[in-house]
Amino acid sequence: MKYFNSEKITFKSGAQREFLWYDPERVVQGKKMKDHLRFAASYWHTFVAEGADMFGTGVLGKTFGGTSPEDIYRRKAEAAAEFTDLLGIEYYCFHDRDIAPEGKSLSETNRNLDELSDYLGDIMAKGGKKLLWGTANLFNNPRYMHGAGTAPSADVFAFAAAQVKKAIEITVKLGGSGYVFWGGREGYETLLNTDMALEQENMARLLTMAVEYGRRIGFKGDFYIEPKPKEPTKHQYDFDAATVIGFLRKYDLLNDFKLNIEANHATLAGHTFQHELATARINGVFGSIDANQGDMLLGWDTDEFPFDVYDATLCMLEVLKAGGFTNGGLNFDAKIRRGSCSLEDMLDGYILGMDTFAHGLLAADAIIRGGELDDFVKSRYDSWNTGIGSRIRSGEAVIEELSDYALSRGDVLSSVRSARQEYLENVVNKKIYECK
Amino acid sequence: MKYFNSEKITFKSGAQREFLWYDPERVVQGKKMKDHLRFAASYWHTFVAEGADMFGTGVLGKTFGGTSPEDIYRRKAEAAAEFTDLLGIEYYCFHDRDIAPEGKSLSETNRNLDELSDYLGDIMAKGGKKLLWGTANLFNNPRYMHGAGTAPSADVFAFAAAQVKKAIEITVKLGGSGYVFWGGREGYETLLNTDMALEQENMARLLTMAVEYGRRIGFKGDFYIEPKPKEPTKHQYDFDAATVIGFLRKYDLLNDFKLNIEANHATLAGHTFQHELATARINGVFGSIDANQGDMLLGWDTDEFPFDVYDATLCMLEVLKAGGFTNGGLNFDAKIRRGSCSLEDMLDGYILGMDTFAHGLLAADAIIRGGELDDFVKSRYDSWNTGIGSRIRSGEAVIEELSDYALSRGDVLSSVRSARQEYLENVVNKKIYECK
Amino acid sequence: MKYFNSEKITFKSGAQREFLWYDPERVVQGKKMKDHLRFAASYWHTFVAEGADMFGTGVLGKTFGGTSPEDIYRRKAEAAAEFTDLLGIEYYCFHDRDIAPEGKSLSETNRNLDELSDYLGDIMAKGGKKLLWGTANLFNNPRYMHGAGTAPSADVFAFAAAQVKKAIEITVKLGGSGYVFWGGREGYETLLNTDMALEQENMARLLTMAVEYGRRIGFKGDFYIEPKPKEPTKHQYDFDAATVIGFLRKYDLLNDFKLNIEANHATLAGHTFQHELATARINGVFGSIDANQGDMLLGWDTDEFPFDVYDATLCMLEVLKAGGFTNGGLNFDAKIRRGSCSLEDMLDGYILGMDTFAHGLLAADAIIRGGELDDFVKSRYDSWNTGIGSRIRSGEAVIEELSDYALSRGDVLSSVRSARQEYLENVVNKKIYECK
Amino acid sequence: MKYFNSEKITFKSGAQREFLWYDPERVVQGKKMKDHLRFAASYWHTFVAEGADMFGTGVLGKTFGGTSPEDIYRRKAEAAAEFTDLLGIEYYCFHDRDIAPEGKSLSETNRNLDELSDYLGDIMAKGGKKLLWGTANLFNNPRYMHGAGTAPSADVFAFAAAQVKKAIEITVKLGGSGYVFWGGREGYETLLNTDMALEQENMARLLTMAVEYGRRIGFKGDFYIEPKPKEPTKHQYDFDAATVIGFLRKYDLLNDFKLNIEANHATLAGHTFQHELATARINGVFGSIDANQGDMLLGWDTDEFPFDVYDATLCMLEVLKAGGFTNGGLNFDAKIRRGSCSLEDMLDGYILGMDTFAHGLLAADAIIRGGELDDFVKSRYDSWNTGIGSRIRSGEAVIEELSDYALSRGDVLSSVRSARQEYLENVVNKKIYECK
Repeated sequence: MKYFNSEKITFKSGAQREFLWYDPERVVQGKKMKDHLRFAASYWHTFVAEGADMFGTGVLGKTFGGTSPEDIYRRKAEAAAEFTDLLGIEYYCFHDRDIAPEGKSLSETNRNLDELSDYLGDIMAKGGKKLLWGTANLFNNPRYMHGAGTAPSADVFAFAAAQVKKAIEITVKLGGSGYVFWGGREGYETLLNTDMALEQENMARLLTMAVEYGRRIGFKGDFYIEPKPKEPTKHQYDFDAATVIGFLRKYDLLNDFKLNIEANHATLAGHTFQHELATARINGVFGSIDANQGDMLLGWDTDEFPFDVYDATLCMLEVLKAGGFTNGGLNFDAKIRRGSCSLEDMLDGYILGMDTFAHGLLAADAIIRGGELDDFVKSRYDSWNTGIGSRIRSGEAVIEELSDYALSRGDVLSSVRSARQEYLENVVNKKIYECK
Repeated sequence: MKYFNSEKITFKSGAQREFLWYDPERVVQGKKMKDHLRFAASYWHTFVAEGADMFGTGVLGKTFGGTSPEDIYRRKAEAAAEFTDLLGIEYYCFHDRDIAPEGKSLSETNRNLDELSDYLGDIMAKGGKKLLWGTANLFNNPRYMHGAGTAPSADVFAFAAAQVKKAIEITVKLGGSGYVFWGGREGYETLLNTDMALEQENMARLLTMAVEYGRRIGFKGDFYIEPKPKEPTKHQYDFDAATVIGFLRKYDLLNDFKLNIEANHATLAGHTFQHELATARINGVFGSIDANQGDMLLGWDTDEFPFDVYDATLCMLEVLKAGGFTNGGLNFDAKIRRGSCSLEDMLDGYILGMDTFAHGLLAADAIIRGGELDDFVKSRYDSWNTGIGSRIRSGEAVIEELSDYALSRGDVLSSVRSARQEYLENVVNKKIYECK
Repeated sequence: MKYFNSEKITFKSGAQREFLWYDPERVVQGKKMKDHLRFAASYWHTFVAEGADMFGTGVLGKTFGGTSPEDIYRRKAEAAAEFTDLLGIEYYCFHDRDIAPEGKSLSETNRNLDELSDYLGDIMAKGGKKLLWGTANLFNNPRYMHGAGTAPSADVFAFAAAQVKKAIEITVKLGGSGYVFWGGREGYETLLNTDMALEQENMARLLTMAVEYGRRIGFKGDFYIEPKPKEPTKHQYDFDAATVIGFLRKYDLLNDFKLNIEANHATLAGHTFQHELATARINGVFGSIDANQGDMLLGWDTDEFPFDVYDATLCMLEVLKAGGFTNGGLNFDAKIRRGSCSLEDMLDGYILGMDTFAHGLLAADAIIRGGELDDFVKSRYDSWNTGIGSRIRSGEAVIEELSDYALSRGDVLSSVRSARQEYLENVVNKKIYECK
Repeated sequence: MKYFNSEKITFKSGAQREFLWYDPERVVQGKKMKDHLRFAASYWHTFVAEGADMFGTGVLGKTFGGTSPEDIYRRKAEAAAEFTDLLGIEYYCFHDRDIAPEGKSLSETNRNLDELSDYLGDIMAKGGKKLLWGTANLFNNPRYMHGAGTAPSADVFAFAAAQVKKAIEITVKLGGSGYVFWGGREGYETLLNTDMALEQENMARLLTMAVEYGRRIGFKGDFYIEPKPKEPTKHQYDFDAATVIGFLRKYDLLNDFKLNIEANHATLAGHTFQHELATARINGVFGSIDANQGDMLLGWDTDEFPFDVYDATLCMLEVLKAGGFTNGGLNFDAKIRRGSCSLEDMLDGYILGMDTFAHGLLAADAIIRGGELDDFVKSRYDSWNTGIGSRIRSGEAVIEELSDYALSRGDVLSSVRSARQEYLENVVNKKIYECK
């Protein structure tokens, strides 16, 4: 071990750091736990970010002993290989700028990217690690201060397009199964200076170009949009799942895009994590997940490692209902708290997250096997399978028929049965705590 | 004057209660102020609700001296005629259950509605008052506790459809130019007991039936959906403008529906009022407005009379940009605070709201005539009219061309000009306070 | 069984409704579970409220077959006895107006209260049930629309004082061990019409009078203030624990008052439940608990039955650290969701809450016995027990000495150790899921 | 003009950038506008911060052409002198680390501070500029990651104390009339690792030491605490005005401390700006103001330049009621939006803020002169000046007397008069728009 002062974490064993729930080879519903969960390490939080916040500088160096920029980025790659190996994580995700430094010109930047992505790809492949998805960082550089695909300047749009093109190429080169758009600056600060219609049309143009190019060069994976309502931008166009789905439908992009749902973005938008996942699922665009946890009393993206088994259980329930991941996975877009100022804390963070989701998977499986929830829902809507319900669903009944039916039927309150929320919450608690 | 202890309110004159800004005949941009604003009184808050809240009973009786139910409802109609006359308001809006009591059976309820709507229609028409829109109350009765168009019980759905059918008929009979759906119970309390896909499909079925029926019986006005994210329901399907537009597009209802945007619902969904209006406008579904104001520190729908001229100005700017109201108008879905326990306070509330929007109209007009904002926005996006910008918009440029362009162009930061938000806010403040 | 269609709930057995965790006689840290938890039924939610909300009428009758007012209130008392017996709950809490109807005059109201409280007291005592606390409802009646102890009208204040006097008498008569002030209307809607200084002084006067009277008539229990930041009032003076403690200190009431902390009120004020409990504890005013759960995405008091074992664990950890309840207990100020429209759902709700807190108690006990958290905290602050830390605490060190120390000490970053939040969260998850 | 590409801003004249409302020599209530408002420039936002946010680097260099650190800090001082002169601002505020760079040791840092504060003090004094208040930055450096006065490490506490000592000395040297404590890191991330009682006691020790030292070296000005509920810390101990007042009272610090109220911090705590000011005023600790504006839909401190005249009016109403500023003033703790990427935008920002508060002052004056609000409040509480109200206030009435009074009085609802919120809001709107 070179960078992390830790023995390999053992599964369900007696080592100092151990998993309580995660057991990669354990079979659940006919599939190994690790294939259900497809855990990924987020390159930016794990090997790049040093703990700076708006009121303080970094507290945890991530040069890994490197000195020159190139040296540092190579060592980050080595650390990533070691770290994922230590934890038994098989996937990773990155932005273009996470893995190679920006040069003096776009050409130089692209050369950096070519070289360092080769190095990264090789070292990760050697350890059997796969790229879950790649993306382009279109928000950090000042040139993107007013947006990238929605920039008021066409030159900036062109620059962004060039960056996306390159990022897709790198993703394809490294065998990535997904490519993500998170539009951190795609939105507005104030409508006083904004042409919202043009900006949204332009965004659709960028996405369309990207898909066409990706398919041309042989990308078979999924494109994703990751909704977020705000931060850094006051209003982000990809507000939530429903908004993004509406946008994709409007611009005829529903066939190529799925959603990458982030737990903390869901709550910032006023939704539960489960709601965003269910919305994606019933619209056929469930794709991948950024697994983390927000603080419901704080109004910004805290990207905490998830410890809440309730959220993880309801998330995995949606994943199982959606048929599991195909190209997607659970990427820990999470960071240790700034006060956790050692590399070892990152191990604790990942263990926390992995165990939480492993437990969530088992609880979701127990809920499905138990059947109480599904049975209740099935019974609750049974009136839609016969009689007037069936005629409504088939489109046979017109409103006059329904009016006549209601007039003759008398009051319908007797057809209303309790929704039994408290009973169902008892069931969920029971499943969570009984599963082993 | 029978019910309201007040002289007729004079416009810009010296009476005790007077308008400071609202002058119905004053011409702005070639149209009378009253035709720009199309103010409407909300029947429910103004002539029905008595100030009960979750922790206290009513404080302000609205029987207007009536004794039997029928007597009371007739007097409400008379009070409505007097009240709107006193304030110079030309429109009103109602739910079916606001204007007639529910009977022992649906047939009896419908008879009540027939008779009392005749009485109301006559008395209002006599004073030159018009119905802005009607709607059905599908949330108060226990039968709708789990939804109406999204009820788990098909019988409840049928009952709701019958009620909608009748409400459309009454709306048409009274010459209403709009019909609203606000789905207060159309959503869920918990996903544990909910089939969200079926519920949303059913909602689309109800809307489709309603449109078909309305058109069959000659309704030429607009159907509206009024978004709200929550309350009373934990999650409402018509979360916000973008969500509703996506839903309408999915179910091919965009041609018949526009949006009724409420200020307080906008902020509950995490948006500004202006954002929701702009979203409706650029998607071609701007329809009508529920004018009120929320308290940004309270998490529920407070439905306050609007006093904030900033919001009113930005609202009227959107209305003017959208070409003004056609069938819609400004309905005061607002109530006096519970502590304002006299009928006279209602006059103060309406004067507050009407003056605020009259001022907002004048300020919006001043902003448009001044041209600073439009000029700034036009100049900000000028790169989209020539060169690479123009090629992107026309679809000629593919991503390779943009990449080549960016590689040769060098950094594009020099094309990024200040967004000048503070300057623009200075302009807005100046226009608001300089208009007379 | 008369009112509840249920067999007696069995503990840890095979009946349809059973407790998974709650086992009243089980001994934890030398005390029976039931004596740790001191569960109470809230009379208002359980035997009075019928499920009305701001958009709908009641859905679940609570007349229990009664016809006249007096009959109804007697049957409520019988139902309360039966219900608490069914669940094995030993305590109950009420407002004066929950247990007897308001009459035409205060004298009549007081007579109603005398008679019906006798009936209630007898029937509850017969079943071994005890009054945890009583209180006066100073918010529902229109006379309190602008406050009670903070009313602009001195007559209203006097009326409120009379009501408090009587409620204390009834509490004493029934052997209550606590008396609560929750000031739902003690605050303001707008500062434009409010003399905040006078209102707060008057509130202190009411509390002082109440304490003096209570002690005069032999009340030995605790007076409590229950903080809440808002709702129904826009701003409530008893905003949160820190605000109330500051108020009590200012008006020299800290010796007689403790706090009744409600989980949902804590989160409405922007705090965790644990934070409010810890604030009370370290200020020596931990008293009693209103156990429920809010919905962090909704901005009002939802008063849900608690299902979240995390919150319950951290709550019980604070209770144990505070030395357990003396006069207080866990009152379920919780209501079943409106869609849970049967009396049987109330059993599910209470079981949910009781099991959640029973589990929380066991997990808190496991955390204390494990010692990881306490050891970590002890070690984290060890520098305060020797050297410069010790001199600072004792008051010996002045700032010049600290400056010299710092100048000579060099940088102190090396003294900063990781806060290890993720490790500690792993510990908590482990304790919660390992306890049996 | 050296750094700012602008002519001197003229007051109420025809230059490109002009004030619409601010007229420094205009007399209001017997005092010059500039002496009412006492505007201050915040050194950190204006001459230091470069527009970085959590997702992007700086966009607006603030080296002012300097090259070496010392050169840069001298030029910042020159820019500050020029900038405040250009706008006619008489005060400035800083953190120690804003005006001089941190050296390799505390001694070196202190030497930097000595030299550069001399330079700054001279150049500002030359232009007639005064120091409103100074403070120490106890949050940016990694050593303070877990707090300064509340650090778990006593060494860190000592270092913080040394820094405070020096910052007070510099403040005194430059003639500052105030010294502020804003405890950005004084709080906790999680209670799992926190000894809240010890941390709060230690904070009180630091404040006590600072006061004693300040007084010893002749500081006659005010010490302030600036409340903020969160950010960067999850929970900050100085949550809001009421919490801080309670803390000061507990630790006997009320005589030496006043509050520095920030508008954006108020709203983050769930309060209006006016509420926090009124709370400070009625407790005798109104001190100074950080003037800015938050975005009510964003959950973090946005520190926007204030444009909302409503807030400014209600703020200035409180300032006037408090008797105006003594040692305090209006410090613009505000930053231009990141998209406003030129130095000239800063002029627009300050003009926006200054005009907003100048307008607010005039409107507040109009409200006071008009008397409608004061008259209404006076009349509303008139029952407290005679009869039973008077006996309650004087302490003569005991609860038995009040009970007898209420029993004999009959219902008191007739004593409840409307709170007339809508009328009062009409008055405020009228005053705001009528003042010139």
